[in-house]
Amino acid sequence: MNDQSAIPLSAPIAHIIETHAQRLHAADGQVLARAGQDCQGFMVVVTGCIRVFARSSAGREIDMYRIHPGETCVLTTSCLMAGEGFPAEAIAEEDTELWVLPVVQFRSLMDQSDVFRHFVFSSYGSRLTRLLQLVQSVAFDTIEQRINEFLLGECRHGLVISMSHQQIADALGSAREVISRQLKTLEKKGVVALARGQVVILDYHALVAAHKKSKNAV
Amino acid sequence: MNDQSAIPLSAPIAHIIETHAQRLHAADGQVLARAGQDCQGFMVVVTGCIRVFARSSAGREIDMYRIHPGETCVLTTSCLMAGEGFPAEAIAEEDTELWVLPVVQFRSLMDQSDVFRHFVFSSYGSRLTRLLQLVQSVAFDTIEQRINEFLLGECRHGLVISMSHQQIADALGSAREVISRQLKTLEKKGVVALARGQVVILDYHALVAAHKKSKNAV
Repeated sequence: MNDQSAIPLSAPIAHIIETHAQRLHAADGQVLARAGQDCQGFMVVVTGCIRVFARSSAGREIDMYRIHPGETCVLTTSCLMAGEGFPAEAIAEEDTELWVLPVVQFRSLMDQSDVFRHFVFSSYGSRLTRLLQLVQSVAFDTIEQRINEFLLGECRHGLVISMSHQQIADALGSAREVISRQLKTLEKKGVVALARGQVVILDYHALVAAHKKSKNAV
Repeated sequence: MNDQSAIPLSAPIAHIIETHAQRLHAADGQVLARAGQDCQGFMVVVTGCIRVFARSSAGREIDMYRIHPGETCVLTTSCLMAGEGFPAEAIAEEDTELWVLPVVQFRSLMDQSDVFRHFVFSSYGSRLTRLLQLVQSVAFDTIEQRINEFLLGECRHGLVISMSHQQIADALGSAREVISRQLKTLEKKGVVALARGQVVILDYHALVAAHKKSKNAV
């Protein structure tokens, strides 16, 4: 155990995880799970980020969620509990440190530790609600609304979003051509500037206004 | 407890539920939960069927899942565990009998009963996987594919599907006009016949073939 890299969790949970789990390192871009694979154990991200997504038979992708430090993977937990294969794909988006709790220890802790069980449950609820919001967004919102929402979400960290049109398409489960067309419309309106692998937000307030307007139009 | 209407569950689970839960009756069409409401307890359907769906601000709907006899509602369970409001809506689709286990008993059983906990867990896994499949279907499949798949799913019970175009639209999160257009195309091809509130499957094998063809085209 290394104090400098403790998980951002409550002390009792961190103690349980660090006592029973194995520490793993995943390099940026490393595939951690493929569709149908057995899950190796319950996992908690310490540093870095894991992207969980689904892929269509034609190779299109859609982001399900990201796992940040202190968070677990609801689909992994679900597979461990139901004894099924992983129904999506997972990839490290940056150099990532994680704890992996082998299946046997996971099951025994679920039976024996109230603290651990409540930690697993609380991660479940909010993630399920967000998956439901994703279903609604994909079903009800136009691609214009979804791109506006995505750009607003991404630009919380700065006004330059370093992603290609293909990466944005993969995040939203859309085709690159559709995303490019919509981004060019925003560029013509002076809301964004497009450069290779970058979307620069030029007019944040116009983006917020466009987002509100398109939401109300549904 | 009435032996004639026992839940289709394993004996130990049925015993736990029937000892601690309250029996409720919901009439066909009765709203059981609205978005944002607190959940009253963990529930198990005995007879009948409950439809869980989401609604957009414009009133469009999309089916999340149905709860059949012996099944529980994963979103209710999730809300109980996380202490959050119900994120969707639920309605009885026919006269429905259900057991409702009050929150306090639910929490105490989750802490104390291995059998009950494993029952709750196993319901979780498969439902989560199906929610994920729904995200993928909505994101990646064309409406043609989704209607073909829906009709094939519904006609397992017979070749006459007693649903209006609006009901099919609500199930798929689409607009009625879109569904009507697609059904008319299928009618022109002699695959279905359309009557008021009914879709009659005239050529099941052609529907299977169209479904396979549209799936491969993605």
